[in-house]
Amino acid sequence: MTDKQVLAAVLLIGDELLSGRTRDINLSEIAKFLSPLGVSVAECRVVRDKQDEIVAAVNHLRGRYDYVFTTGGIGPTHDDITADAIAAAFNLHIDVRADALAIIEDWYAKSKTPLTESRKRMARVPEGGSLIANPVTGAPGFQTGNVFTLAGVPKIARAMLEDVAHRIEGGAVTHSRTVATNGLREGDLADGLGDLAKAYPEVSIGSYPYFFEGPDGEIVRGTNLVARSTDEVLLNDVTGKLADLSRSVGGKPVIDPPDAK
Amino acid sequence: MTDKQVLAAVLLIGDELLSGRTRDINLSEIAKFLSPLGVSVAECRVVRDKQDEIVAAVNHLRGRYDYVFTTGGIGPTHDDITADAIAAAFNLHIDVRADALAIIEDWYAKSKTPLTESRKRMARVPEGGSLIANPVTGAPGFQTGNVFTLAGVPKIARAMLEDVAHRIEGGAVTHSRTVATNGLREGDLADGLGDLAKAYPEVSIGSYPYFFEGPDGEIVRGTNLVARSTDEVLLNDVTGKLADLSRSVGGKPVIDPPDAK
Repeated sequence: MTDKQVLAAVLLIGDELLSGRTRDINLSEIAKFLSPLGVSVAECRVVRDKQDEIVAAVNHLRGRYDYVFTTGGIGPTHDDITADAIAAAFNLHIDVRADALAIIEDWYAKSKTPLTESRKRMARVPEGGSLIANPVTGAPGFQTGNVFTLAGVPKIARAMLEDVAHRIEGGAVTHSRTVATNGLREGDLADGLGDLAKAYPEVSIGSYPYFFEGPDGEIVRGTNLVARSTDEVLLNDVTGKLADLSRSVGGKPVIDPPDAK
Repeated sequence: MTDKQVLAAVLLIGDELLSGRTRDINLSEIAKFLSPLGVSVAECRVVRDKQDEIVAAVNHLRGRYDYVFTTGGIGPTHDDITADAIAAAFNLHIDVRADALAIIEDWYAKSKTPLTESRKRMARVPEGGSLIANPVTGAPGFQTGNVFTLAGVPKIARAMLEDVAHRIEGGAVTHSRTVATNGLREGDLADGLGDLAKAYPEVSIGSYPYFFEGPDGEIVRGTNLVARSTDEVLLNDVTGKLADLSRSVGGKPVIDPPDAK
């Protein structure tokens, strides 16, 4: 682990995310998984199931960030084109690979499910790629250079990350603290926040207004102040000052409430 | 309304989405809002609160798509830099604008909230931009060319869309139907699906495996088949054939189940 900043990008592949039919969970799960490893997600893209769009995004992101995580499009059906797109992006040969096929054959034999030609497609892995274990449904993901290709189903994607952690060389870990204050609006805090942000350039300070329905049906509004830094001493200083700021304008701040990460 | 395909991009702005702290809702809400207007979301990007990254994304997306929707970064605090970034992307002057300021003054006067200098920042709108009404918290969004800049808080973003609809010239509306079958896996259906996709090139057919916990704690797995097309006659044909396919491999398909959109 080094002190340098290590950045990742996430590429979500699939028409269903862009149609609004499915709401993505993978971005936040990947970000929360990477954060304690010292890797911050710096960009995310969502593209359609179109090979040229996947290729363009993969090639842009893998050149710009230390790691890239793709989700989606590695199943057995005609719309699963991610493996071929990754191979095209890296200009690598792709075919059914014996090591991946052996895993899939073994999995389906155990579950007494016929291994159709379509299911064999899930053993298509770019030449030289290294497999990523899938303890949920068998068919593996794969790593190609700095690009990790995971399934789209969140339970499977999350499980695959366990076989990714040991391949990641992270940097300094970014920690975060939250100061939540019901009743305060962003505008009550903005001047003080701007001053704090200037005084502590090593700490990123964000301000996020929220609304929720209270127990009697009333709308509760408030603001979460979130400080993030690799320096925990500075971070604790700033957290205290954010709470002071909240009190100075009449708020009753709660530090790190259980429902805020 | 024309028959051409009208495409939009969504640009989500904010560190909190990339840290995993907040899970985005706006992409799916915007997509579901645009779909009946005849506009399909073709790409989404999530970028940090960094002006150069916002500018680069806005300029790429506005050149490539008919419409762009940004969310986030138009509040009163130091990390709200979207308005300035949009002005920079279009090379437009930006300052506090009298029309926006009047709306905000009026709103805060009614709610007896002090209009601080920070709150006045929310009246910073690029020169020539047209305001978008915010019935939730007053401070407006704005339209600059083909780019609509909305708030990040989902309730506010959704409300602002109501003042966007009349500005959109949509194309052919894409309809969708879902055939859900508990118990079937993608691999059971893949061969038939590939054949159908080839036979109906005007209909996009997607296959989405799912898992959920049943009433007795058991894991139910199944597959949603989703057909999308601007041609409702073809779409109904394909929906029937998808149900036939599901039955042919032993499934009991449900067409358009209430929890699938």
